[in-house]
Amino acid sequence: MKTIAEYSADVETALRALSFPGGKLASLYQPIEYALSAGGKRIRPVLTLMGADAFGGNASEAMRQALGIEIFHNFTLLHDDVMDKSDVRRGRATVHKKYDENTAILSGDTMLTLATKFVADVPDSKLRMVTDTFNDMALKLYEGQRLDMDFETSEKISLNEYLEMIEGKTGSLLGAAVKIGAIIGGASGKDAQAMYEFGVMTGLAFQIQDDWLDTFGDATTFGKPIGGDIMNGKKTYLYVAAFEEGGKTVEALHTAFNIAPGEMRVKTVTRLYEKLGMSEKCKKAVGHYSAKALKALNSTSLGEEEKEAFRKLAEKLIGRKK
Amino acid sequence: MKTIAEYSADVETALRALSFPGGKLASLYQPIEYALSAGGKRIRPVLTLMGADAFGGNASEAMRQALGIEIFHNFTLLHDDVMDKSDVRRGRATVHKKYDENTAILSGDTMLTLATKFVADVPDSKLRMVTDTFNDMALKLYEGQRLDMDFETSEKISLNEYLEMIEGKTGSLLGAAVKIGAIIGGASGKDAQAMYEFGVMTGLAFQIQDDWLDTFGDATTFGKPIGGDIMNGKKTYLYVAAFEEGGKTVEALHTAFNIAPGEMRVKTVTRLYEKLGMSEKCKKAVGHYSAKALKALNSTSLGEEEKEAFRKLAEKLIGRKK
Repeated sequence: MKTIAEYSADVETALRALSFPGGKLASLYQPIEYALSAGGKRIRPVLTLMGADAFGGNASEAMRQALGIEIFHNFTLLHDDVMDKSDVRRGRATVHKKYDENTAILSGDTMLTLATKFVADVPDSKLRMVTDTFNDMALKLYEGQRLDMDFETSEKISLNEYLEMIEGKTGSLLGAAVKIGAIIGGASGKDAQAMYEFGVMTGLAFQIQDDWLDTFGDATTFGKPIGGDIMNGKKTYLYVAAFEEGGKTVEALHTAFNIAPGEMRVKTVTRLYEKLGMSEKCKKAVGHYSAKALKALNSTSLGEEEKEAFRKLAEKLIGRKK
Repeated sequence: MKTIAEYSADVETALRALSFPGGKLASLYQPIEYALSAGGKRIRPVLTLMGADAFGGNASEAMRQALGIEIFHNFTLLHDDVMDKSDVRRGRATVHKKYDENTAILSGDTMLTLATKFVADVPDSKLRMVTDTFNDMALKLYEGQRLDMDFETSEKISLNEYLEMIEGKTGSLLGAAVKIGAIIGGASGKDAQAMYEFGVMTGLAFQIQDDWLDTFGDATTFGKPIGGDIMNGKKTYLYVAAFEEGGKTVEALHTAFNIAPGEMRVKTVTRLYEKLGMSEKCKKAVGHYSAKALKALNSTSLGEEEKEAFRKLAEKLIGRKK
């Protein structure tokens, strides 16, 4: 197995080597190249390559699928940015800002089909499993995205609903990424499914940790200002879990969220979260899903070296500082 | 072979029998049901069913793919309506009007993946050909859509560019619809490709005829007010062919398109189109592509009854009154 940094560099190189139609069609494909050139850790395609390597295949056999996964991921970001009216991503103008909204919609659609095509570029014997895994994941992701949108206007969300949402929006893609790699590498059906579970559970732990960092993290290492979620009244793990508690402190929390968005609201809500033991509860949940991920990983027939590589990746993702 | 009306009714019945997730996910899937319930001739899925029947298969074996094709078609309409800011389709509010724009984007994305999934629901031995045909068609369609968008702001478009655009936007889907049916029916590679050609050429003839009807048709049978394209300065076959002529009449045409949109502009442009012989040229082109479609059809190993069924469908589509 290579290191995560090496796999990531391989993905980056392969992405840069892609050539898209130019000329008259540049207006369709240039925004796609732009979206794909934003950089990042490329964790999802790395998972695909690692899956192939770990199960006795060769990472290079899974490169098309890894790229398909990364194109899909960036397609979801692109359409999300349109829906959220976000102007900036990774310090650059978003596609609909740099070009226009119609371009973002149409080039996004193109990315989804391109991703599907890249993923389908496997030996025929693996096409059914890979294609089904990919399409089912995509539907789960849209469902998670829809739940997230609906949460914005929901009064009461249960922790289960929150978990269902992040499983769709974050977990399913990590799960499918590694499962597709595993299938290509030659994993048994049971092992491929266990790796899916590993990916999903790692995704849950990652997302809950991200929620924690947004309130209790360190601005310099988190890479974003702390308290953004509280400012926006976002339904995070902390928010949903706190409101499930009930009682007097929760009433105070209600009042705190009615403070105008600003430092005072962030401070007050953070203090109440602490009072309710939410920081601990959140960390516990991260531990819980990390443990589930590792349990799934350990259930596979992988050797110790391979397991260790995936453990490192999960740690890097969940314990991530930026 | 059944009649076109019978195939169409079968599609309608199958569409109505689809059941989508409800409950919390209704906000994602209800707009899809709404979009699919708008009715219409269902020509594209009919082509898929006919393709399967004609080549010795059974239409019912191709129903999932027919539905996939229809879902894909409606996905393109849905996102087109967002991009065009169209409020009405088939006499009903468009999805982004009835719900909202973000719903139209996300439910549209979901339709694309659903369509891909339905189309992939074939025996494994046919998955590769069917999947590749579908994905390649989708990319062609987006490319055609992009060209069409860019034409709005282009000064000069050649007839070749126009034909390329409508081949992508209209022809490729008709071609892929019938080709996928043919593959499922058991057509040889050569026959499947000839049927693709038949679909594409029928699509070109249909689109050019549609351009003609918009200027020279009869409002009561066309179903839309005559002259809409002239009012909007749309780059139709007539427009592009006329400006390719050069000379004095074209200068007059330029002036005519500067008349404020209204009856006077429509009358003046129509008269100039006639003077330039555009009505005839347009009809000739329709005949040309219809003939190409029939030539492709005749080149297949199909029996006379099957050929006749496809001829009827092409006639119905191209000679369509509404």
